[in-house]
Amino acid sequence: MTRISALVTSAPAGGISYKNIDLQVNNEAKAKLKPVYTGLCGTDRMMISGNLPFTYNPKGQDYIVIGHEAVCQVLDIEDNKFNIKSGDYVVPVVRRPGSCVNCRIGRPDNCSDADHDVIEAGVRGLNGFNSEYFYDFPQNLLKINDKTNILINVLTEPTKNVMKAFEIFDKVSERSIFTGSDSTYMQKNCVIIGTGSEAFLYAFMAKEYTMNVFMTNRHSMPEDKMKIIDGINASFFNYKNETMPDYIDLLIDTSGDPETIMRFIRKLNYNGVCILFGTNGAAPGTDYTGIDISYIVEHNIVIAGSVDGSKKHYLDAIKYLNKWKYMPGSAVKYLITGIFSPDETEIFMKKPIEEIKSVIKW
Amino acid sequence: MTRISALVTSAPAGGISYKNIDLQVNNEAKAKLKPVYTGLCGTDRMMISGNLPFTYNPKGQDYIVIGHEAVCQVLDIEDNKFNIKSGDYVVPVVRRPGSCVNCRIGRPDNCSDADHDVIEAGVRGLNGFNSEYFYDFPQNLLKINDKTNILINVLTEPTKNVMKAFEIFDKVSERSIFTGSDSTYMQKNCVIIGTGSEAFLYAFMAKEYTMNVFMTNRHSMPEDKMKIIDGINASFFNYKNETMPDYIDLLIDTSGDPETIMRFIRKLNYNGVCILFGTNGAAPGTDYTGIDISYIVEHNIVIAGSVDGSKKHYLDAIKYLNKWKYMPGSAVKYLITGIFSPDETEIFMKKPIEEIKSVIKW
Amino acid sequence: MTRISALVTSAPAGGISYKNIDLQVNNEAKAKLKPVYTGLCGTDRMMISGNLPFTYNPKGQDYIVIGHEAVCQVLDIEDNKFNIKSGDYVVPVVRRPGSCVNCRIGRPDNCSDADHDVIEAGVRGLNGFNSEYFYDFPQNLLKINDKTNILINVLTEPTKNVMKAFEIFDKVSERSIFTGSDSTYMQKNCVIIGTGSEAFLYAFMAKEYTMNVFMTNRHSMPEDKMKIIDGINASFFNYKNETMPDYIDLLIDTSGDPETIMRFIRKLNYNGVCILFGTNGAAPGTDYTGIDISYIVEHNIVIAGSVDGSKKHYLDAIKYLNKWKYMPGSAVKYLITGIFSPDETEIFMKKPIEEIKSVIKW
Amino acid sequence: MTRISALVTSAPAGGISYKNIDLQVNNEAKAKLKPVYTGLCGTDRMMISGNLPFTYNPKGQDYIVIGHEAVCQVLDIEDNKFNIKSGDYVVPVVRRPGSCVNCRIGRPDNCSDADHDVIEAGVRGLNGFNSEYFYDFPQNLLKINDKTNILINVLTEPTKNVMKAFEIFDKVSERSIFTGSDSTYMQKNCVIIGTGSEAFLYAFMAKEYTMNVFMTNRHSMPEDKMKIIDGINASFFNYKNETMPDYIDLLIDTSGDPETIMRFIRKLNYNGVCILFGTNGAAPGTDYTGIDISYIVEHNIVIAGSVDGSKKHYLDAIKYLNKWKYMPGSAVKYLITGIFSPDETEIFMKKPIEEIKSVIKW
Repeated sequence: MTRISALVTSAPAGGISYKNIDLQVNNEAKAKLKPVYTGLCGTDRMMISGNLPFTYNPKGQDYIVIGHEAVCQVLDIEDNKFNIKSGDYVVPVVRRPGSCVNCRIGRPDNCSDADHDVIEAGVRGLNGFNSEYFYDFPQNLLKINDKTNILINVLTEPTKNVMKAFEIFDKVSERSIFTGSDSTYMQKNCVIIGTGSEAFLYAFMAKEYTMNVFMTNRHSMPEDKMKIIDGINASFFNYKNETMPDYIDLLIDTSGDPETIMRFIRKLNYNGVCILFGTNGAAPGTDYTGIDISYIVEHNIVIAGSVDGSKKHYLDAIKYLNKWKYMPGSAVKYLITGIFSPDETEIFMKKPIEEIKSVIKW
Repeated sequence: MTRISALVTSAPAGGISYKNIDLQVNNEAKAKLKPVYTGLCGTDRMMISGNLPFTYNPKGQDYIVIGHEAVCQVLDIEDNKFNIKSGDYVVPVVRRPGSCVNCRIGRPDNCSDADHDVIEAGVRGLNGFNSEYFYDFPQNLLKINDKTNILINVLTEPTKNVMKAFEIFDKVSERSIFTGSDSTYMQKNCVIIGTGSEAFLYAFMAKEYTMNVFMTNRHSMPEDKMKIIDGINASFFNYKNETMPDYIDLLIDTSGDPETIMRFIRKLNYNGVCILFGTNGAAPGTDYTGIDISYIVEHNIVIAGSVDGSKKHYLDAIKYLNKWKYMPGSAVKYLITGIFSPDETEIFMKKPIEEIKSVIKW
Repeated sequence: MTRISALVTSAPAGGISYKNIDLQVNNEAKAKLKPVYTGLCGTDRMMISGNLPFTYNPKGQDYIVIGHEAVCQVLDIEDNKFNIKSGDYVVPVVRRPGSCVNCRIGRPDNCSDADHDVIEAGVRGLNGFNSEYFYDFPQNLLKINDKTNILINVLTEPTKNVMKAFEIFDKVSERSIFTGSDSTYMQKNCVIIGTGSEAFLYAFMAKEYTMNVFMTNRHSMPEDKMKIIDGINASFFNYKNETMPDYIDLLIDTSGDPETIMRFIRKLNYNGVCILFGTNGAAPGTDYTGIDISYIVEHNIVIAGSVDGSKKHYLDAIKYLNKWKYMPGSAVKYLITGIFSPDETEIFMKKPIEEIKSVIKW
Repeated sequence: MTRISALVTSAPAGGISYKNIDLQVNNEAKAKLKPVYTGLCGTDRMMISGNLPFTYNPKGQDYIVIGHEAVCQVLDIEDNKFNIKSGDYVVPVVRRPGSCVNCRIGRPDNCSDADHDVIEAGVRGLNGFNSEYFYDFPQNLLKINDKTNILINVLTEPTKNVMKAFEIFDKVSERSIFTGSDSTYMQKNCVIIGTGSEAFLYAFMAKEYTMNVFMTNRHSMPEDKMKIIDGINASFFNYKNETMPDYIDLLIDTSGDPETIMRFIRKLNYNGVCILFGTNGAAPGTDYTGIDISYIVEHNIVIAGSVDGSKKHYLDAIKYLNKWKYMPGSAVKYLITGIFSPDETEIFMKKPIEEIKSVIKW
């Protein structure tokens, strides 16, 4: 037993403190890891405010170390087939497989029994990554080969969600010919609802598909954010008062708001796809009518929920972050809008103005 | 110009009459066809009551011959590569391809520009099949090789919708492992909302997938209909007061009613699929909340609209109807609940009690 | 321990005898089964002649009960979730899953480690079905709901191979648009090499796809076999001297003969698919040249090996056999060309003239 | 009519000269283009030596301008929906769509009638890109947004072949679970036969899949080439005398040599995939036996020919080349081993020692 400092909450009650905890050394998990950077996200803040009822502490603890977005350095590790060595940078995965038919093939993101069968670091039943150091198994770690500007790789976990969502898009868009008559996505319009970090990462990826990308929200965009959007040759419109594209081929929601979602579904093109990613249990209800259902039917529209991602999506995330890191202008680096120390716990309670992604440096 | 009797309405105004019309002989369309049986469906009734605003008369006519479900006999036909000859039975397709990227590959059901680019016999801009005889092109006809009990083949057109919907199911269910750990659908629950003819055809097909099939509605089922459900080893529950399965893997809606749809989406399993097929523009709205959206996201659920079907689906429909025709008990034949003559136009206005499918004998 | 009569060989040495063996009662496998009909195939004959080096006896036995094609009746069974009861007819599966990533999802036919990880009833390490009775687990049994003409269901096991092969065809033909511009397979030519039982079952299935089906071999077809081919509206040509179709879209080989296979690959159309199913380790080699490789490349051709099938394919086999059973003319029944008793062991050594499928009645 | 200098041959007879030709100004094709760099490939050399019988001169010409790998600058262009302007860099596509079902959806690489229905710049019936300037249509041009180090983009055309091949791999590997039980390709072995420019580009892409990548040939690798292989963390073995991996999951051939191909197919793992890309009509034949066929069947192996690529693959090529351009070390730039002037026509006849890709600067 060692005492280390950590950021902890009590799930699902909430609260946040930076304090010393007794680290139960897991003798089996022979990788010792030190977080270098961890990211903050909506899930963390909802946990801290006691608004995520499905979260729970690890067995035998009255607290949970929070944080599931991290890039870590390996302090010590047993021999492993992944060729991970001491000193390497790694990203640990959040969700750990259970025994269902999807988990068995390494796809806990598609767990058929997620109510009972999975644990998630920093969220459900397993300590997260915001502690001086921690132990994990080599198979839960993804190695970052490129050690330059490792800060960007703290975005790996949120980016893996985007990779999973586009995998779903690839699958469901095979119902018909989705691409244009030139085989490309160049004339396809992608609208992304929201302007948080995930929304930006979706925009980055939609541009890799060569789509026309539009981000939207119900307020205007500050200059700093517009710089990023311009940097990837995308657009923004305030949907309350600005013109939007005539039709949408791919709609991605990061808001979780039923009213906004339906507003844009009504603009989806034939064979259009809507990816639902954002969640907001507190979002008010809105009327969906028979006309809306008819619209979805007659336009062969698909609406697909997408949650989490598996190791393959982490690898894809690493691949694309690596590309974006080196692109001229490197817009991706502007997604990190603040770097804090672990004791600045107030950022868990109050989102910094114009935050895209806040990061803790360990 | 010849005078023939036909069932006509004026689109989109409505009305119905059985009367003589001048048949414009299309000299290009060298297949002369006589309907043997035509089927009635909700679309016909909505047209007649003036409730389908997107319908319109053929150019230069102030009426449209209604009816898009038919099995016909060929009176005369030019040589064709489909090996269709005089005396053969055929089913004419409804939707005719335009020039979009999907129509080009024979998939007008996925038309990317259906607002402008397609015509539909008996619905939009083209006479339907309820007339003494009519002309069409060989490429719009599907031959029925099995001439026994040809009445069943009047169900080809509604069945092709089911085939298209299951094609969509096949595609979207590839996002994850949908089948059980034994590779089959045997432990999967399929719930079908509605008890009309399409609902029954969906039930027949879901049984071919070896799923557990449940039909549901908000009233009890009369004995005649229960006989069919029993005949295919499916179940029924009244969702207002009877027990339903604990979870649903595949949900198929034929009601178009937002409230009922969401009631069951909330019971969808992880990786579940909801196929929306029914449309009812007059269905009242209902509240979809942030919790509903979160449920769809966290369960990796897909909701897919499915409209129409292409020639390949007509062929699949013929294949399965042929199977069902010969099955011991032959439950499929009980789907046809009434056979009427063309002058009994009141059935267009008033649905016979306990109708599943009403058919007109020509 | 009970003494029962069985057909046994010693793997891989060979030989055949019908004799009494001591049945080791497996107390765990609580389904007691009596074969009703078993089928004979090339694998059986090769085992008996000592020509299948990969076969081996069950552990602790110096013999193996042969036979892997069977329809059985349940004598006694424990409660099970498959709703199989005493008196039911069932087909037992051949290959039993190991622990590889494909076996885990019920796909031992795709076993990633079949050299070490699977056992096969009647072939590798597990007694087959040619014994008075035997024990198995409910999860290895597929129930036949339709009890009429149960003889046809002895074809379930060979038919499941066909279902797996068409699953592969479905997947690999998605590289491009394989269907015609009308979305159907109606103008597509399927050539099947061979005229044994598997070849016929492939022909039956290719007709379900509405392809033009041609069977071929290097001799003429006897009248009995031609009756079956005519019955499903397919064709036959002797490739040594008769005209063949100008091009082939789908080529299926049941011969395992490299020379014949390449003869027809050279006729494959752009985007064509060749399914290799037949195996014949003794088939002589033939020259494949750079021109052949270029042809495959420039025509985007796929050649796919297909072995075995999983429970889902057995279910599909049952579905289609059920359809074919009831079709007018019922050509499928003519595939069974002889019914023998277990003591007529000479049929294992000498193929009856004009055999398609020989069956043993228990 | 203007006189410009160009590199021409006469197809299919061969020969090469750098001389003045009369440029037929195509008044419809309103993009005027100047090549900046063009690449040389085996096809060019085979044309020049008169060994590509399917090549032919444009109608009304007794010569054809050769060259189908180019990055060009736009001198003048009409308004277009692709937002291409004067001064932009573009890559022109080689194959132009005909009217078949695949060409109709922008996939001339999958042309169903390539013997009659497609033309290819610099190869079949259309002048290529090795001339002072030429005219083309905006829809045949792909814009390069990143203007840095434009030389690398001369690799776009050969790289698009790789993208098409991996699209095929993605499709055919869906027959089973191809990835490991962790959902990734990290433990999968990819062997690439050959060490030319295409082989290297395949290696680059296989690394993006995170596979273990092995290049092979029947001689040792010079230091310069090894530097590139090391730079992407791949390996090389001389298959005549060095150890190769125990098993292969993905085999890619760039040699077109039947003997070498079969040597490695015999090492393919269960569910393995072999992509045939290389062509060499002069490669000697080799014996394929019944044992080889059995191996392919019993291992569920797929062998897929892959030719050409469509606009979507050009876009993917541009995407990845852009990534590789900026990667630390930038191994991709070493693929260009020589830059020549148009009058150095001897490089068409004699491959420079240790050439990977020779380029002409215009």
